Amino acid sequence: MKSENFGLDARFALALAIAEEAGKVALGYYENRESLIIETKRDPQDVVSIADREVENLIRAQVVATNPDDGFLGEEYGLLAGTSGYTWVVDPIDGTSPFVNGMPNWCVSVAVLRDGQPVIGVIVAPCHGEIYASALGKGATLNGTVLSLDPKRTIRNAVTGIGANSYVTPAFVGNMVEKLLDAGGNFIRNGSGALMLAYVAAGRLVGYYEPYMHAWDCMAGFCLVREAGGWFHPFPVEGDRLIKGAPVLAAAPGAIDDLRRIASL
Amino acid sequence: MKSENFGLDARFALALAIAEEAGKVALGYYENRESLIIETKRDPQDVVSIADREVENLIRAQVVATNPDDGFLGEEYGLLAGTSGYTWVVDPIDGTSPFVNGMPNWCVSVAVLRDGQPVIGVIVAPCHGEIYASALGKGATLNGTVLSLDPKRTIRNAVTGIGANSYVTPAFVGNMVEKLLDAGGNFIRNGSGALMLAYVAAGRLVGYYEPYMHAWDCMAGFCLVREAGGWFHPFPVEGDRLIKGAPVLAAAPGAIDDLRRIASL
Repeated sequence: MKSENFGLDARFALALAIAEEAGKVALGYYENRESLIIETKRDPQDVVSIADREVENLIRAQVVATNPDDGFLGEEYGLLAGTSGYTWVVDPIDGTSPFVNGMPNWCVSVAVLRDGQPVIGVIVAPCHGEIYASALGKGATLNGTVLSLDPKRTIRNAVTGIGANSYVTPAFVGNMVEKLLDAGGNFIRNGSGALMLAYVAAGRLVGYYEPYMHAWDCMAGFCLVREAGGWFHPFPVEGDRLIKGAPVLAAAPGAIDDLRRIASL
Repeated sequence: MKSENFGLDARFALALAIAEEAGKVALGYYENRESLIIETKRDPQDVVSIADREVENLIRAQVVATNPDDGFLGEEYGLLAGTSGYTWVVDPIDGTSPFVNGMPNWCVSVAVLRDGQPVIGVIVAPCHGEIYASALGKGATLNGTVLSLDPKRTIRNAVTGIGANSYVTPAFVGNMVEKLLDAGGNFIRNGSGALMLAYVAAGRLVGYYEPYMHAWDCMAGFCLVREAGGWFHPFPVEGDRLIKGAPVLAAAPGAIDDLRRIASL
């Protein structure tokens, strides 16, 4: 008989192995990106290539082979419902725009949900040789070193990550930037929301705000941030909400109040 | 008798050697950043550490030892006037905020001016093992590969880099973000203006706009962009203007008009 915990442990080990392998395959495409054909999705800034699709296929195939009753949601091919209570939520390459343009800030993001909560979160940043790993109650690590957030960091003495896409208006994005700076904050946007969430868990950024993101962009990062001692705004998962977008906000303890005010969340 | 060209060639070789060595020293500080004491300059987001100062000292000492008649302008210690007609303009660590927070997007930026124009530009990004090198009439390279901009890239099918600091108001920054997005553009801000200018030269970004930057942040990048076939807005160097800030705009050919309109330059 499989216990709940055995299920989590086995899947955590699997998620790590899969994400690491996926990172290697993605890095191979990145190093040969001159030959990739770049297509666009919902707007000319929303790009995709065979690398995204092939890496997602590789991850899904391994999950289906080992845990056929698990659900699977990937950015490129959508949702495959499951019956085990576990759902994998995967962005094969988060930061496709940096990826296709030759900038190193992209990652592979693998999460597993149970009861709508991210219980496993693994993010691999191949260009930087970094593996961020977390599971419910087991803490978060970066290349094996335990991550634990410093409560003295605020938006005023540390940097906040932001993101945006064409689901929100230019005026909204401009306004959120203005509000963050007005409050004494500073921002970066490296092109990968998942990686910036991992940076929140690692204490490199004090928070991350994006007004509209999908589950595959944020679930692994949420698990990492929570396990490092941070907070995230609940992401709706009921019914078909899991495949729709929602505001994403995650923060170290000392930045929660300021960022909630700025994001009106 | 030293010819003008000999002077440029010798200084180009020296700039490359110095920047590479400075990158190694800076990387040593980065890998041991837990022990750095972080100080702030003009606001709590404007940080500096002994790494910036020591790397600038190292670069200046080598320039003074080899070219004692050259001028030298560094971010941390200001201007040392020269008589040779050449002035070195150096940011020992551009992207100190990413640097002290553990994010890899920082670089060493070394430029040499003659008649107010950047005739040498070298940028080293140690975390990524990248060396961007350029000199007047000699083209631009990245790790030895020649860089040449694609005229088909625009703000609508490529990414634009932006930067800002507390010299400009939050409302101004919010507005410039809004205008860029309104025009169909997309932005990143990786935390190092010099590195993003190098990315423009490499075709990774189609342009870079920052409303107020200093000469040490942009001169090496300008040389790289020009030598790769791009354009930059003239930076004022007369009298004491060289040590003051100015708007910075650099772009690939297909993005110049749009970005000039957005920046009103």
